[in-house]
Amino acid sequence: MSETVSEAPTAAILVIGDEVLSGRTRDKNIGYIAETLTASGIDLKEARIVPDVEDEIIAALDALRARYTYVFTTGGIGPTHDDITADAVAKAFGVPIDIDPRALAVMRERYHEEDLNAARLRMARIPEGADLIDNPVSKAPGFRIGNVIVMAGVPMIMHRMLDNVLPTLGAGTPVLAREIPVEIKEGDLAPALGQIQAKFPDVAIGSYPQYAEGVFSTRVVVRSRDEEKLKAAAEAVEALVANWPAKDGAAASETGKGFKP
Amino acid sequence: MSETVSEAPTAAILVIGDEVLSGRTRDKNIGYIAETLTASGIDLKEARIVPDVEDEIIAALDALRARYTYVFTTGGIGPTHDDITADAVAKAFGVPIDIDPRALAVMRERYHEEDLNAARLRMARIPEGADLIDNPVSKAPGFRIGNVIVMAGVPMIMHRMLDNVLPTLGAGTPVLAREIPVEIKEGDLAPALGQIQAKFPDVAIGSYPQYAEGVFSTRVVVRSRDEEKLKAAAEAVEALVANWPAKDGAAASETGKGFKP
Repeated sequence: MSETVSEAPTAAILVIGDEVLSGRTRDKNIGYIAETLTASGIDLKEARIVPDVEDEIIAALDALRARYTYVFTTGGIGPTHDDITADAVAKAFGVPIDIDPRALAVMRERYHEEDLNAARLRMARIPEGADLIDNPVSKAPGFRIGNVIVMAGVPMIMHRMLDNVLPTLGAGTPVLAREIPVEIKEGDLAPALGQIQAKFPDVAIGSYPQYAEGVFSTRVVVRSRDEEKLKAAAEAVEALVANWPAKDGAAASETGKGFKP
Repeated sequence: MSETVSEAPTAAILVIGDEVLSGRTRDKNIGYIAETLTASGIDLKEARIVPDVEDEIIAALDALRARYTYVFTTGGIGPTHDDITADAVAKAFGVPIDIDPRALAVMRERYHEEDLNAARLRMARIPEGADLIDNPVSKAPGFRIGNVIVMAGVPMIMHRMLDNVLPTLGAGTPVLAREIPVEIKEGDLAPALGQIQAKFPDVAIGSYPQYAEGVFSTRVVVRSRDEEKLKAAAEAVEALVANWPAKDGAAASETGKGFKP
């Protein structure tokens, strides 16, 4: 797909957790954050999943935060021995980390003093200079330092943290999208679609094959920040589909015979 | 989580596709591949998602293939203008790419000659020196070159390609896992769990908070390639849970009062 020209803020996601890499937990955070950022006009450019290993977290953080406007992390801010994200972020930024009085205060709203054991107090460790991100579900906060936004891995908590941090970020012009489901096989459609893409360089035209119950079809997705250009390109795709099979030689395959038996 | 000591083969996954980064398509491939590799004794160490941009694909490929035993890619091998994975892989390896007679032959099993348009013929473009990976679903093959395994993005097709390629790889000793669901909040459990982890350095003990219907619980997962050590560590966790609240001072939090109202 060609790049949509823009100066929108960019972002990367860094998912931290052995359990995702072992396949035991299926990540649901990347898709959710991706959709939310797109709706906010922030271009997600990359996502990475790394294990609970400090050097790996720091290396990925440094690569991503140098390159993108924002880095969103999920996971590794709980109370156990393998929750090392906050410490890794502090090391990456070269700042001290300790129990933060603001974080401790919000945790005291939830926990009895005798339940604030050493493990739970880990969740109040925040790198110096960070802003807290409110966690209305279970109190232990996320935080933002520089362009890095550190969130919980539990989806329900992460969703609320993302809601809370998004309004504080510089958002861009949302990318508009129109999806055109097409009952034509991607390979038949491709040549003509490539020609339409060439005509509309400021519009990103993607096509995604679908396979269900033995039948191949295609979702065509047209994306742009410019409503007029989006409309023109979408109409060109719709006209192509309405007049299928193509008569102008754009599609070499007009037999409609489908696949060999 | 501490690293399980082993000389198992390692792997990375590289998911290629704007549609995943825009949130329009939710990736289901990473979780599936992760689980399958783990069952085969291959340690998944990292996953990345990159857009349909040649330089980005090449940079990620080069970083990952230099570091891990295998790199599994998904996506970008279809017939359309944004399917550029095969060309990017050829560039990364510095080899020519052209229509491969073996790939063309299998595609002719499926397509009528007049349906083999320029777009579909893109799917027969294979980097020189690559081995094909059979695609029994829709014929257009995946391929393996060096330590890079290139698969389709459509899950049903990718699953079959992975099935076909796995027996050709050097597998390791599978990691054994035991999952212990615990109706104790992670923060209560954490101190004692950390002590058990310290006692069993060759076993990886992870704990994952669950939140459902207003109740927090914890999944404890014990993983090792050594069955005896796994058993001993799992029994230690089970004993901890059976005798909860802990009497040895390991858990500072024994009130059972739960959260503040």
